[in-house]
This record gives sequence, C-alpha cells and structure tokens, in this order.
Amino acid sequence: MTIAHSALLTDLYQLTMLQTYHAERMNETAVFELFVRRLPPQRGFLVAAGLEQALDYLENLHFTAEERDWLASTGRFSADFVASLADFRFTGAVQAMPEGTAFFADEPILRVIAPLPQAQLVESRLINLLHYQTLIASKAARCALAAPGRLLVDFGLRRAHGAEAGLLAARASYLAGFAGTATVLAGMRFGIPIFGTMAHSLVQAHDREEDAFERFAAAQPGNVTLLIDTYDTEAAAHKVVNLAPRLRERGVTIRGVRIDSGDLAEHARQVRRILDEGGLNDVIIFGSGDLDEHRIRDLLASGAPFDGFGIGTRLDASTDAPTLDMVYKLQEYAGQPRRKRSEGKATWPGRKQVYRRTTADGSFAGDCLGLVAQYPQPGEPLLIPVMEQGRRLQPPEPLDAIRGRVRAQLAALPADLRTNEAARPYPVDIAPELRELTAQLDRKPH
Amino acid sequence: MTIAHSALLTDLYQLTMLQTYHAERMNETAVFELFVRRLPPQRGFLVAAGLEQALDYLENLHFTAEERDWLASTGRFSADFVASLADFRFTGAVQAMPEGTAFFADEPILRVIAPLPQAQLVESRLINLLHYQTLIASKAARCALAAPGRLLVDFGLRRAHGAEAGLLAARASYLAGFAGTATVLAGMRFGIPIFGTMAHSLVQAHDREEDAFERFAAAQPGNVTLLIDTYDTEAAAHKVVNLAPRLRERGVTIRGVRIDSGDLAEHARQVRRILDEGGLNDVIIFGSGDLDEHRIRDLLASGAPFDGFGIGTRLDASTDAPTLDMVYKLQEYAGQPRRKRSEGKATWPGRKQVYRRTTADGSFAGDCLGLVAQYPQPGEPLLIPVMEQGRRLQPPEPLDAIRGRVRAQLAALPADLRTNEAARPYPVDIAPELRELTAQLDRKPH
Repeated sequence: MTIAHSALLTDLYQLTMLQTYHAERMNETAVFELFVRRLPPQRGFLVAAGLEQALDYLENLHFTAEERDWLASTGRFSADFVASLADFRFTGAVQAMPEGTAFFADEPILRVIAPLPQAQLVESRLINLLHYQTLIASKAARCALAAPGRLLVDFGLRRAHGAEAGLLAARASYLAGFAGTATVLAGMRFGIPIFGTMAHSLVQAHDREEDAFERFAAAQPGNVTLLIDTYDTEAAAHKVVNLAPRLRERGVTIRGVRIDSGDLAEHARQVRRILDEGGLNDVIIFGSGDLDEHRIRDLLASGAPFDGFGIGTRLDASTDAPTLDMVYKLQEYAGQPRRKRSEGKATWPGRKQVYRRTTADGSFAGDCLGLVAQYPQPGEPLLIPVMEQGRRLQPPEPLDAIRGRVRAQLAALPADLRTNEAARPYPVDIAPELRELTAQLDRKPH
Repeated sequence: MTIAHSALLTDLYQLTMLQTYHAERMNETAVFELFVRRLPPQRGFLVAAGLEQALDYLENLHFTAEERDWLASTGRFSADFVASLADFRFTGAVQAMPEGTAFFADEPILRVIAPLPQAQLVESRLINLLHYQTLIASKAARCALAAPGRLLVDFGLRRAHGAEAGLLAARASYLAGFAGTATVLAGMRFGIPIFGTMAHSLVQAHDREEDAFERFAAAQPGNVTLLIDTYDTEAAAHKVVNLAPRLRERGVTIRGVRIDSGDLAEHARQVRRILDEGGLNDVIIFGSGDLDEHRIRDLLASGAPFDGFGIGTRLDASTDAPTLDMVYKLQEYAGQPRRKRSEGKATWPGRKQVYRRTTADGSFAGDCLGLVAQYPQPGEPLLIPVMEQGRRLQPPEPLDAIRGRVRAQLAALPADLRTNEAARPYPVDIAPELRELTAQLDRKPH
C-alpha cells in the first residue's frame, strides 16, 4: 500500500479535462481557491492544517514512466497527451493561511495560481490532504478547549480510515494541543511524543492480574501506566496499592492507571480514593473509551478526578462531523474573474483575501472577505505567499511553532466559540467591491 | 507520505507489551479474534472486506534497521529487546471469512493463531485495514441495494480521510457492487474500472458553456459525459441537444449528462424531456452531489429518471456511521481460553466458528456462534484457513470473484435487511457449549 504522492491520486475527470486543455492549448494562468462552503452545525470554527503535506505534494508532483504507460494502456488518452505528461511539473504560486489559523465559512485557506492544467490536476489530492487534517485539527481543538490542563493523547490509529489517516490525525491533533499520540510511526515521521499504556490482552494472558501488573512494570525502564478495568476496576486499584512498595524497592515507579470502561466518573472517584488512601497521591488517572469533547466536558464538570484522556475513534474519524464541505474552485482564468452559479453552490469570484480585525486585547472581532487589495485594508491579511515557481518560500514550519499559533488563536476566539457551543456564527463580512464584482459577472451571458 | 506496511504502524502499548513478553519469555500460542461488538443502529448487516491487504501486511511484516535504530533512540526499550526485533516475522496461522461475506455482531471475521508477541503487535494495523474496508463495503452494499440496475461510481477521493482511504474505498465499493471509481490510481493498482465526467472549472474556463462542451467532447476518443449545472441546467440541456448533431458529424457521441446541484429529481425530469424531444433518448442522466442510499432511494421512488449516480463524500467517510465497534481480543493463551469481563465490553472466550443456516432456496435463516467443533455442526462454517506459518494458502482472490460473492450474499439476506430498514436484528444464537465455557471462566478468580 505504498501511496506516497502519485500524480494518479486524482479523479479521472482531471485527466480528461487536461487532455482537452492540451488539445485546445488552454494554458493560461488559472486561479483556484480552496475553502469550506458551510461549517458543520457542530463546529463554530475550523483550524487550518495540512499545508506542509500539500506543499510537499506540489513540489514533488510528476508522472512516472510506469504511470504514463498505464495511462496509455487505458485507451482513453492520445499518445501526444500522454507524452506531454513526462515533463509535467507544478510551476505555480501558492498563497495560504499558515497551519493553525482559525477560519470560517467561505474564507479561502489556500490559493493556487498556475497554468490551468497544473492548477486543475492537483484539486483532488489538495482537498484530500487539507480536508482531513483540518477536520481533525478542528475536532482536536474542541477537545483541548474542553479539557484545560489535562494530558490528551491520540489513540485513534486502529479506527482511523487507513494508515495515512492515522498518521495525519496524530499530526493534526498534536498541532491542536494534544500532548502526543499512541501511533509509533507518527513519532518517527513527525517527531511527535508517543504515549502508551497496556492492553487488556496482557492482563488476560496472565493467570493473575497482579502478576501482569508486576511483570509489565518491571519490564519498563519508566513511565508505567497500568490498565485496571479488565475484571474489577476497584479491586485492581487495590492491587496497584499493594504492588507499589514492592516495585519501589526495585526502582520502578507507577506513573498512572487507565480506566477504559463502565461509569468512568464513578470509577475515577473510587480509584482516586483508593490510591490516595494507599499513599499513591502522585499516580495519575487516565480515562479512555469512546471519548470526545462532550463526554470529557461532562466528566470534568462532574468533578471526576481525571488527569488525562486517550481519545481515539471519535477523534480520528471526527465522528459527529466526519467531513467538511471543502471545495477548490476556479476564481479567475486568463485574467478574467470566474464564478460558478450552480444552485446552492455559488462562489465568490476573483482573488480574495481574508482581513481579520482584532480588539485592543487581541481578540478576534470579525473578518472581512474581500478582493486582494492593491492598498492597505483594515485588519490583518491572513493568506501569505508560501510557494513561487513551484518551490517553497520557507522551510517546513516546526510543529511547535504551529502549536503556539493554535494556542494563541484559540485564546483569541470570541468566548462563546471557546465553549464549543456558539449560539451565533462568527461575523464574516463580504466587502462591497466583492459584491459588486459578483453582480457584474452575473450580468454576463454564458 | 509513503506508508506501506511499516511495523511501526502500531500503538506504542503493543511494543511495551512486547518488551514485557520478551523479558518474561511469554512466547506461547495466543489466539485473537477480530469482530464487531455492536452494529451501528444504521446498519442491519456488514460485509467483510480488507482481508487481502491484511494478509499482505502479515506476510511482509518486519522491522527495518532504520526503525530499530529509531526505537532504540527513544530510550524506552532495552537493547536486547530492540535487537530481537531484527528477526521478528509473522509465522502464525489465520482463519477468516472470505471477503464479501455478510456478517453480524459478535461474529469473528478473522482469527490469528501465533506466538503471543506476533499476534499482539499486529492488532492496530489489522483493525485499521479490516475496519475501513468493511465499513465502506457495508455502506456501498446499501447503496447498491437502493439502486438496482443503476450505474454506481465512487467519487469520494477528495473527502476520503487520506489517500489510503481513497484507494481502499474504491476497492471496497467495487467489491460491493459499484461499477467503478473516479480514482485513477485505484484503476492502476487494483484494475478497477475508472469513470469520469468533467468539472465546473472546465465550463468556467471558457467564455461560453457550449464551447466548453464542444471542446471537451471533441478531445475525448469516446465516452463523453457533460456536466450541465454550472449556470442553468435546462438551458445547458438544450445546448447539448443543439451540439449533438455537430459532434455526430465528427464521430463523437455524447454518452451522458451529469447534474450535481439543485432539485435533482425535478432537473432530471426536465432534462430527460429536453433530451428525448431532441432525439437524444440514448443519452443517460447521471446524478451526483451529497448522495447516499437514502437520497438515491427517494430519487428513484419519485420516478426521477436517473441511470446512474456518483457517490462521494457520504460513501468514503460512511457519514451516517463513520466507524464500527471493531475489536481484536485475546480468546486463548497457552491452551487456556481467556475472557475480558470489562463492563459493557465482555467477550465470548475460546476459538469460535460461525455456522450459517440457510433455507431450501438458499436464504440465510440464522447464524450460530459456537466453539470450533471437532464434529460437524448444522450450518455452513464461515471461517476458513487462509494462512499457515505466515504464508498465504491461496493467491489473492480476483475482485470479480468477491463481487460475485457479495451479489449472492445480498440476494440471500432476509428481505427486511435488503430494504436497508431492518425492523429486527438478524438472528445469531450463542451455542450452549460457548455459554457453558463462559460461565466456567467467570467462576475462576483473577
């Protein structure tokens, strides 16, 4: 299942359109913008993520000889067109919001300016990359807002949609404030801190639960977290208390226990009491099992003494909103603004910029979606140049820098967005000159 | 983003447990079974898929030198343990339901029998591979049941969760009865038929819609489908009628039109009338735009004259049920049956088989979940040997054979399951000897 960045990770219609553009020599500059048409009802804001992988894709885009041979073998393409793909590269410019930027409906997070065939071919994979990480960063940010000061870890690989999703979910959730992931390969690839406890199978493979605890702890150089809900959670907590002094003599410290089933809040209270009475006040309690921002908020609101959470399935699949209405639309071709007018799917034409106003204390006061201006506008322009002539303008941004940006953005959100229960949408105005351009285009025949 | 089948595509706790097993020389035979605990309320049955990729993973599993060096660098593992990973291979046996088999809650679709460390490490990626394709094959089967005789095409790459999801969704939906996919790489990798039309951007890039249609059609050797909803759907249908004779003179036939927005049923009726009045009775109408089995059923029930559908986002993300409660649990270790008793998550112990009874006409009459029997049982046993000593027993099954199995399985489902609206669950009995074994284990202390 090696997938890397194949140029064939695209929809067939991109290639049939490219064949048309090739035949018609339609090679003028096209401007496409990528944005989310509508936020899911469960989301008050989104967090842009995935730009690094998108730029990597654009920089490395090419058709291998094997891919060209296969395309020729389908009988769908002219020999002339297939031959032209040997030299196909992405040579365009990209402007984008930096990863970690909060954004809203209709706001472009990425603009591609390139010869039409290049800008067209990349649609499918650009959306694929930016959609998923944005989806997960946005979900993870909500979890982080619901669990201030708690240790959050991505547990989702097994029910992520494939391996790439598992890896990219680890990255996106780390950007959004998670402490790390259980996915080992994400540690090696991205340098994300990895976390792990133990599974029920280790307990089951031993005849006695206390033997499983002792042997597991003794085999780890440090950082031991024991899973205590395989049979009877409170009984297991007592076993941990009994075991701790013996392990301490051997130089092993139990760092935490994990509870994965049953009434988590009630178990956590009982376990905290048992641990504290046993002198294990420093042992943290970690919760897992079908968690999301809502369950975590409820657990913490009830006073359940959890120090951290593993969040898996509902994070990596963003279960309550598993997709975003993210699209990539032609806004200008050969110097002329363009507009799609399909019912319910009309777009704002032209090259656009998002200008964000802030209050004196730095909070976001509202955005304006306008045309890229030749003169200064009120508010900070959010899209910046990131690629020229097919080459990145900056080296990849360190993950810690993006994490810092997310923290600052979340802190600057209006208060009702930070509670995950926004009653009213964040204000995004449409600039008058953009409305005027739209009206002009609508008067033209097609 | 090359991911292939890295041994590090696993959760950290698998490796920390392996270190324990290594230290304790716990290398006896373990039996794990993979099953879905509960069906989502929106699903009356599931379709097993992904076995081919799972077996490929097991056959090729190993730690590269780079991976071992990285593990050593984390400081979490003993040098002795990391060195032992150089020879790590999967040498076990696997029994499984063939891909395309319909199955239900608690029924194992795959069993791994291997030395404990091997059987443990593979949990995360085995679930990851079997979960996603089973999820999508099950969703796609519902779409196929809702659209008998219609051409269904997977359009979902862009909003699939990463590239691997896009590719595996193409495979899983093809197995379940789709005609093919728009994802080009799935055509090259899996030999799945690829389909494509055109995008709005091609229309927008031309000043006149009819020019876009004519140039696009002229550049395709055949198989032209025109997208007609960029501006005014019915006006575009008239343009198609006007264009057809001119194209016919040039040897180009229009095969179909696609409608992607607005009131699809009403547009399809109008467009059908316009095409028919224009003599284009053979031109098919293809629908797309946030479709799923419910919308398709409603469209067809209303008499909307659609000949086919492109199904994207809601298929590749299985939007109404984006995950399954699929788990992989230890059922036996060192010859002793094992059972997890966590609240709400208890498992049936031991090596199990699913026996399916059929009526005289071949319809499924009910399943029995029992222990692997030493003597014949009523019903057909669904799990069969697929791997011994780490090697496949059969070559990969051709996709067409799996497609045939799905067709036969869907035809044999009870009628209310075929309508996608099962009022009562399919009957799965628990064999008395399995209940007895469970009760025995529960009497043992831990």
